[in-house]
Amino acid sequence: MNSLKKRDNEVQEHVLQDVDKILMDVKNKGDAALLEYTYKFDRVLLNDLKVPREEMERAYEKADKSYIDALKISIENIKDFHQKQLRNSWIDNGKTGIILGQQIRPLKRVGVYVPGGKAAYPSSVLMNVIPAKVAGVEEVIMVTPPDRDGEVNEAVLVAAYMAGVDHIYKIGGVQAVGALAYGTESIEKVDKIVGPGNIYVALAKKQVFGDVDIDMIAGPSEILVIGDESANEKFVSADLISQAEHDELASSILVTTSDELAKKVQVELKRQIEERNRKEIIEKSLNDYGVIIVVENMEKAIEVANKIGPEHLELMVKDPFVYLGQIKNAGSVFLGAYSPEPLGDYMAGPNHVLPTNGTARFFSPLGVDDFIKKSSYIYYSKEALESIGENIINFANVEGLDGHGNSIKVRLEE
Amino acid sequence: MNSLKKRDNEVQEHVLQDVDKILMDVKNKGDAALLEYTYKFDRVLLNDLKVPREEMERAYEKADKSYIDALKISIENIKDFHQKQLRNSWIDNGKTGIILGQQIRPLKRVGVYVPGGKAAYPSSVLMNVIPAKVAGVEEVIMVTPPDRDGEVNEAVLVAAYMAGVDHIYKIGGVQAVGALAYGTESIEKVDKIVGPGNIYVALAKKQVFGDVDIDMIAGPSEILVIGDESANEKFVSADLISQAEHDELASSILVTTSDELAKKVQVELKRQIEERNRKEIIEKSLNDYGVIIVVENMEKAIEVANKIGPEHLELMVKDPFVYLGQIKNAGSVFLGAYSPEPLGDYMAGPNHVLPTNGTARFFSPLGVDDFIKKSSYIYYSKEALESIGENIINFANVEGLDGHGNSIKVRLEE
Repeated sequence: MNSLKKRDNEVQEHVLQDVDKILMDVKNKGDAALLEYTYKFDRVLLNDLKVPREEMERAYEKADKSYIDALKISIENIKDFHQKQLRNSWIDNGKTGIILGQQIRPLKRVGVYVPGGKAAYPSSVLMNVIPAKVAGVEEVIMVTPPDRDGEVNEAVLVAAYMAGVDHIYKIGGVQAVGALAYGTESIEKVDKIVGPGNIYVALAKKQVFGDVDIDMIAGPSEILVIGDESANEKFVSADLISQAEHDELASSILVTTSDELAKKVQVELKRQIEERNRKEIIEKSLNDYGVIIVVENMEKAIEVANKIGPEHLELMVKDPFVYLGQIKNAGSVFLGAYSPEPLGDYMAGPNHVLPTNGTARFFSPLGVDDFIKKSSYIYYSKEALESIGENIINFANVEGLDGHGNSIKVRLEE
Repeated sequence: MNSLKKRDNEVQEHVLQDVDKILMDVKNKGDAALLEYTYKFDRVLLNDLKVPREEMERAYEKADKSYIDALKISIENIKDFHQKQLRNSWIDNGKTGIILGQQIRPLKRVGVYVPGGKAAYPSSVLMNVIPAKVAGVEEVIMVTPPDRDGEVNEAVLVAAYMAGVDHIYKIGGVQAVGALAYGTESIEKVDKIVGPGNIYVALAKKQVFGDVDIDMIAGPSEILVIGDESANEKFVSADLISQAEHDELASSILVTTSDELAKKVQVELKRQIEERNRKEIIEKSLNDYGVIIVVENMEKAIEVANKIGPEHLELMVKDPFVYLGQIKNAGSVFLGAYSPEPLGDYMAGPNHVLPTNGTARFFSPLGVDDFIKKSSYIYYSKEALESIGENIINFANVEGLDGHGNSIKVRLEE
């Protein structure tokens, strides 16, 4: 155990040093460092980091119509849902001589990191870009690593184009995070970096946090299905498998009040797994992190769910809405037999970037709130200040800050 | 330079190791570790970590009436302002067979760190505790280091009592952060830790981030005053000084369109500094980080303010409301001659926990939003799912996730 632990630390330190070096190089050498690291890690020598507008248009023209149709509906639904999250600045001037309020403004410039290669998920482009656009962000900059021919995944390009990304740059990894955080000759620095990435990207984001804002660090995915005797074992099994196919570290949990469902699902899982393309990943994930828990009643089932605080929670039970109010900790809740998690991943509108691994206890789905900032404002008339001036001076005295008190005194003495 | 930098790294690494060790000890040994580290760092052997209710009541009875009066007004105003930040859960069921929404819930348990000793600021207790209470947090736990007699600052106790803190524990430093993050025999683990602390506390919070949520890491304070020819040099100088007295690292900036004001303030500052208790701190802060910038017009002044993104921005100009809309980056804006920053520190109602050091570009004042979490929910009827089922399957195919597609297929085949 001790030696394993030690090895862990060594790796981490080495990785952190690499990350720091790349970030410093990008900060000091700008575009030159980006080209150098892109050659080193992506094995391609780029002339230009930027994806020209025409390349996006060309990808769009070439794309399969069924894909475009799916994107259209998805984009519309995501926009609709996130527009409901918009909030107004407000003013409170109910007391004579006093005006207070809160201003809400969009961030000016946001960077979206999109992983390259086989794990290219256009749905993730939509889920990160659209809330920013709905919030009113002026400029959304996307970065994504090129393949060895210097190209970017076309499905991703199409999604970015349709979602309204303003600029795309063909860089990935730590160097892309550095470019977004510090700016280079060709890439302007942003206010916030969002989007998933590997361990290097995650560490780089953590390092630049404070220079810019970042989103939460995403962990492996999980689903918890609560099923009663009315649940269909085919549906339940398909949903558990759809989670498991993401990743060997993904976790699929069934909590059920029905012994019979538990048994049927075990049989059905075996049958369905055989038909899946990603059979090995699914089997490993289900073996390592899959579990079926039989409980006495719905109360216990909800208790288990709240304790785990799953990223995705499906309620495949009679009258699911009755239980919605009892769910304290979950990223997204899917109600009834015909609301499977992939509906939320792609199409329904709510964000699929969700708190994982129990962090729904305190984190929230990505949304418009993540792309705005607030500031407060205060106006007091002379009379209003006079009416509480002494109280402020007294309070400042208790804290030993006579300069604070004096700022009031000079005004009262006027 | 290089050797300086190297020393920095060594210190940091050493500090980080200390922080990790203490956190691990608290995680493994619970209360025993808390008592041990309290003896080691605070030089006091405690029998009981908890401040009994009666001790709080006694401090309240003993307190100066003028202090109680100040606290009452402050608490009322902070409550009023933060209640306006509350939001409702919402539902959208405008499309047949589709119900979407967002649930908003308070965090269950929050820990507030309050520094001890001379830098005990009861106003900071109010600003951290009240938004949590307004949000609906069930349990607010305060931790603060004891003095050598095992006592806690009385002014802080009174503020905590009146603000409605549920439990107070006499622990500080890294061990307090560990207790809140992991829980011990006598302290329940929380969902979020807020409140200022020294470098050890800040590092500890960063280390436990993810196990719990944390607030932003606070840096040194700053003020930017924009004054035109109408501004009173006494007011301007007093406000610059009130910022400078916080800390040698604090920064006080005057941006003015008036040469005359610039000159008058330079004279007035010298005069006022002589009268201040914290003269040495003020002089060092103003020498190192104070500056007066004369600009051509208000447009330029606003430009400078937006570039700096100050924590506190005072507009001591004619018609200050006219410029409010042009302020893009600021923690809190103080409008007119009678709205000095200490009014906001103690009494007006908006939070005084604000983004520092330019981070107003992307961070916001502490508020109710920091003590809630959101989750989304999705219901589709069979017919609604059927109407877009093919689109979901197509999208899943583009991403190579046939298990996702299958979760829809099994339902369409039903």
